[in-house]
Amino acid sequence: MLSDNTTGPSASETPHSGTELDRQVSALVADLSDSAGFLSSGNAGPRYQEDWTGAFGASAPVLRPRTVAALAETVRRLHGAGLRIVAQGGMSGLVGGGAPMRGEVVVSLERLNRIESCDLYGATMTVQAGATLQAVQEEAERQGLFYPVDLGSRGSCTVGGNIATNAGGNRVLQYGMTRASVLGLEVVLPDGTLVSRMGRVAKDNAGYDLKQLFIGSEGTLGIVARAVLRLHPLPRQRYTVALGLQDLDQVLRALAACRADFGPMLTSFEVMWRDFVDFVARGLGIGRDPFAGACGYVVLIELSCYDRHPERDEARIMDALEALSENLGTPHVVVAKSLSEAAGLWRMRDASGEAARHLGAYLSFDVSIPTGELQSCLPRIYAGLDAIDPALRRLTYGHLGDGNVHLLVGCAGPAAEHVEHLVYHEVMRCGGSISAEHGIGLEKNQVFQRLYPAAELDAMRRIKLAFDPGALLGRDRVFGLS
Amino acid sequence: MLSDNTTGPSASETPHSGTELDRQVSALVADLSDSAGFLSSGNAGPRYQEDWTGAFGASAPVLRPRTVAALAETVRRLHGAGLRIVAQGGMSGLVGGGAPMRGEVVVSLERLNRIESCDLYGATMTVQAGATLQAVQEEAERQGLFYPVDLGSRGSCTVGGNIATNAGGNRVLQYGMTRASVLGLEVVLPDGTLVSRMGRVAKDNAGYDLKQLFIGSEGTLGIVARAVLRLHPLPRQRYTVALGLQDLDQVLRALAACRADFGPMLTSFEVMWRDFVDFVARGLGIGRDPFAGACGYVVLIELSCYDRHPERDEARIMDALEALSENLGTPHVVVAKSLSEAAGLWRMRDASGEAARHLGAYLSFDVSIPTGELQSCLPRIYAGLDAIDPALRRLTYGHLGDGNVHLLVGCAGPAAEHVEHLVYHEVMRCGGSISAEHGIGLEKNQVFQRLYPAAELDAMRRIKLAFDPGALLGRDRVFGLS
Repeated sequence: MLSDNTTGPSASETPHSGTELDRQVSALVADLSDSAGFLSSGNAGPRYQEDWTGAFGASAPVLRPRTVAALAETVRRLHGAGLRIVAQGGMSGLVGGGAPMRGEVVVSLERLNRIESCDLYGATMTVQAGATLQAVQEEAERQGLFYPVDLGSRGSCTVGGNIATNAGGNRVLQYGMTRASVLGLEVVLPDGTLVSRMGRVAKDNAGYDLKQLFIGSEGTLGIVARAVLRLHPLPRQRYTVALGLQDLDQVLRALAACRADFGPMLTSFEVMWRDFVDFVARGLGIGRDPFAGACGYVVLIELSCYDRHPERDEARIMDALEALSENLGTPHVVVAKSLSEAAGLWRMRDASGEAARHLGAYLSFDVSIPTGELQSCLPRIYAGLDAIDPALRRLTYGHLGDGNVHLLVGCAGPAAEHVEHLVYHEVMRCGGSISAEHGIGLEKNQVFQRLYPAAELDAMRRIKLAFDPGALLGRDRVFGLS
Repeated sequence: MLSDNTTGPSASETPHSGTELDRQVSALVADLSDSAGFLSSGNAGPRYQEDWTGAFGASAPVLRPRTVAALAETVRRLHGAGLRIVAQGGMSGLVGGGAPMRGEVVVSLERLNRIESCDLYGATMTVQAGATLQAVQEEAERQGLFYPVDLGSRGSCTVGGNIATNAGGNRVLQYGMTRASVLGLEVVLPDGTLVSRMGRVAKDNAGYDLKQLFIGSEGTLGIVARAVLRLHPLPRQRYTVALGLQDLDQVLRALAACRADFGPMLTSFEVMWRDFVDFVARGLGIGRDPFAGACGYVVLIELSCYDRHPERDEARIMDALEALSENLGTPHVVVAKSLSEAAGLWRMRDASGEAARHLGAYLSFDVSIPTGELQSCLPRIYAGLDAIDPALRRLTYGHLGDGNVHLLVGCAGPAAEHVEHLVYHEVMRCGGSISAEHGIGLEKNQVFQRLYPAAELDAMRRIKLAFDPGALLGRDRVFGLS
């Protein structure tokens, strides 16, 4: 649903109606003609107005620069006119970061989508921000290399958006967040200045590493124009293994054992709680519970292998799994025998979006909990939910190898407020994070500002003010200035 | 040699002689007694006055806070009095970042050296900044885990210094720079404010990732007090392999083949050029050239293995090396058969410090060159050196898997200026970096400010001003404010 966002300084401070703003923007970029790619708010379709959640958005004029020079010039002119800007990638964000608020001008990176070059010896790829994640993944594979960032929205999300939000996904355990895959970056500052350090090198300690500031700042400090990405060797084989376990202690011991035996071959360690498995596999009929309800937790493991002789990797995997099964006392170990069997296992894990839609009104939490605290923190959350309302439906799953837990709670009205308070309170108490990978955006900016220390927020505001004193770029995303 | 640093704004703006400053600092922290750890400039020995290079330094009063609270309070008082501070770790830096300039007060982290805790399931370690790298490595191993950052100065360099300089080393290829190993950070800002995000989680997108700003900023934005480090599975076996190759093209093809066949098992790919091997092995008698002068390049590879059955890893390594030898047409492949044989191979590579000392006056370059550009960039540098003076002795070695080349050039006087200009010009021209891992500090701040774009320097200055408008912390390291 498209909300009519009239709260906050955005609405009250902006004199433009949609059409006045259209005329102003159109005039500003008239001489740039096609290279600016202007669309009036009337002609810009819904794809520019709301992100994947549909919870935020407004009608807005759109600029779609075709070159980096046009991007910089466009931003410079908007800044000169005191107009507010929101940058857009593939609009697959989950916190309202890319959806325009009333009075904002959309700058979409969609036409800056070229993959410029690949350096095979250096294992790097130079891309424009609007290239989709999938296009990058496929180009890397064509070159015999591997781009490890992977998200469900790979077909629509863009590299620029991934960088602006420091996207996570299923393979963070081994390859890190998007941040770890960015070697070089070209950014347009809020005033239109182009800052470019597109070095195709892994080691660069010449001055402050400015790119780190822009990665994950959710489009509030600058607009990503181009990037140099780090590629990896392409695994020769991948194996998917499902483990059925009874309690969290067993899950954590399995994680430690997999780390020790597989080292960097362990590229995913995903966990689905019984509540999630039942709802998705039994309730929605998506995928199949390989242990037919016998286990409290279903763990999916991905192992990435490089041996020229696959039988050697297989023997090694079977040996380690045998030891694991014996040490943990679980007979529930399944190695996918085919790609389709592996896909069947992952289908269940990937059905979180469908699961959410079937919950009706729900809250979605994307939290990090230190792995060693899971066994104390999660039971406290569950007990708290029961105290609020024992009938609340909850679905738990996550990238447990990284301590990233996703929790969906079906609830609405006043209960929702209690649930939110409970979950964030417990997460903060154990030293976790209220946003593991989705970011803050508009959705969590209030709770973020309430829960985090004043000294941290003050430091972030100093940075924002240093680059965007008028808060013209991505205003109120992450935090407000007052 | 201890230079009498009287250039720059430091000397001219500071009214204190050593003893006046001593009295002022002593009075400021008098009521903190032992927790501030005051030493007058007369009592502070040379270890506080110069770093490893000995090129910068001055006599200075020293504070050695024993707790984080004392650190913050100390900095707050010095800031309030308008005194300039330089933070010190193990003083193993190579660019004068930690050496005091006249008028500065040293804040040494040496007494904040506790390893606080280890989280086995989460694979994290919480440490104070003054802990040595070696202490962290050893504690990780005691817990059956692995801290991958490794430098020759491991016994004296500290975790806080590693973080402040984003230290690199031999294993960046697989594990990244120090930045990749920092999950949480506690920093004292120049005004004494404590900013702490010590989450023991791999994924945390709640707001700007402030720690990224402090990592690698060489003590100019804040003082690292504590950190949460990321640990890895401990390899069960490590193998060292030496390859003898004839030209850079062969070296690069070997790198690509090793990446493809070994994937993340490949944890080092170090290269020594003929000039380096001859000088060290034949000239200084350190280590042994395994190919007795027959090869233009000696490559050292480290492979880290996790299989419970080492014979399977060995078989796999032998298979891949056989294919490599055949494809590259080189018979020069040696697998170290024992730890002592491996140590012998590494001894030669680790002798760069001794080599430098035997060069007499020399310039040391620590540059990154995009791997794909090595074959065009290096010959241009060599040709340029020959044009300056064909008798200039040069030693080349480096972490080639990362494009990080170290080049020592024996020269002095006016030739040195030409050599510096040549090398940096060629490195910038091919999109490399003038400092791959050592940083900028005092040594390279002039050349850094001359060669890098104004927009980048301006962005860095904005950040510095946002946190330290009076430039009281680490002044003139990395860049000056005017």
